[in-house]
Amino acid sequence: MLNVTVIGSGNVASHLIKAITFARGIILKQVMSRRPESLKDILNISDIVTSVADLKDADIYIIAVSDNAIEEVSALLPFTGRLVVHTSGATPMQILNRKNRRGVFYPLQTFSKLRNIDFLQVPLCLEAENAEDYVLLQQLAGALSHTIHNVTSQQRKSLHVAAVFACNFANHMYTLGSMICNDENLPFDILKPLIQETAAKVKELTPVQAQTGPGVRHDDKTISSHLYYLEDDNLKAVYKLLTQSIQHIHG
Amino acid sequence: MLNVTVIGSGNVASHLIKAITFARGIILKQVMSRRPESLKDILNISDIVTSVADLKDADIYIIAVSDNAIEEVSALLPFTGRLVVHTSGATPMQILNRKNRRGVFYPLQTFSKLRNIDFLQVPLCLEAENAEDYVLLQQLAGALSHTIHNVTSQQRKSLHVAAVFACNFANHMYTLGSMICNDENLPFDILKPLIQETAAKVKELTPVQAQTGPGVRHDDKTISSHLYYLEDDNLKAVYKLLTQSIQHIHG
Repeated sequence: MLNVTVIGSGNVASHLIKAITFARGIILKQVMSRRPESLKDILNISDIVTSVADLKDADIYIIAVSDNAIEEVSALLPFTGRLVVHTSGATPMQILNRKNRRGVFYPLQTFSKLRNIDFLQVPLCLEAENAEDYVLLQQLAGALSHTIHNVTSQQRKSLHVAAVFACNFANHMYTLGSMICNDENLPFDILKPLIQETAAKVKELTPVQAQTGPGVRHDDKTISSHLYYLEDDNLKAVYKLLTQSIQHIHG
Repeated sequence: MLNVTVIGSGNVASHLIKAITFARGIILKQVMSRRPESLKDILNISDIVTSVADLKDADIYIIAVSDNAIEEVSALLPFTGRLVVHTSGATPMQILNRKNRRGVFYPLQTFSKLRNIDFLQVPLCLEAENAEDYVLLQQLAGALSHTIHNVTSQQRKSLHVAAVFACNFANHMYTLGSMICNDENLPFDILKPLIQETAAKVKELTPVQAQTGPGVRHDDKTISSHLYYLEDDNLKAVYKLLTQSIQHIHG
């Protein structure tokens, strides 16, 4: 059995806590948070410790706090030589205080407190300073998810940037689409099947194969009429640059 | 029973033909195409007529050809006073030759010959010059799909622009994400659960609520480090403009 302690109470921490609770072979040893009430939907508040002084022995400590708090929290831990990992895509492993053995346990997914996630489908990107610790992280990851990747800090950085495009920017395209509908009193619902199918397509096709639309067809007549239609400067600028980018990539 | 004739052999025509074949209360009267061999997977080539002279009486003629051929095809039809519709999002109803009764039957979806579509889930956007013809289109649409919208030419134009954002540009974000992964020898597969979840989220949340990432958080440290990481000018320009656009919308 592997004893795991989670530090944090945000989106990643709470999804992780739920997943660990249901995983076989993993014991949720402790949860530490300075704001225990934000976990009240998934744990008894009395079970949550609020001070590092109360942390007991565990095989793995997972620091799932905001990126800029990781360094400080890892420095505050009152023990040495134990395995401490963070869950951040954007942060190098080396930011963790070197008094402990270091690693990374990065779940590549977009988490909202409002939505349940099937954690088994979440790709887990692992890194560790030494091989024995990597094996421990693998054991934990294997109990939580079907997909595990050995990812260096440099690769994780690129993944984090790629995720901004594939998730944050893609979602922003939904926002701009919904605003355009809104202006003509059309419900956003009308776009939903299109959005779902666009995402479903790239399960089978590469996104390059799946690309459709006036940009990739070099349909200048439609592009001009769309730009003429868009009065808002921001929408116009985005439409222009992304059409240019599509033609730059596809030729 | 409603007799429907389809003219065309592209993506929209072939998905429409399949859907009509399985619909109750609708008879696929004829299919006309100048390139019948491109429909050989779904019809006997001998059943496809290749000349407008061979077109028989039907209740509705659906012209599902490329946008710039609609006008010409509608003018070539050797009859008058019948109901003729096109399937284009970008084209006004008025482009159809006025010798026939005119309408639009626009399926708002991204079609690829390689992928099957559940046509019942495709929003159908209808327009007709007169109320009786609108009822006929509703009857056809109701047999093919669960979702029907009465959409004017002006609204359809805005929908088409919105679809470029929500579909074509969103897919391009997947492409750019996959290129970034590629550069670090990471498989595109690693992004797929994220892409699916990003799309699934907006079934329940508005895209404004669903927005995450360094842009909406005004996390300048991460934004700078991502821009520093991106060496390619095109990727850098897209990252900058879309971060700016997110902050413009979300404040």
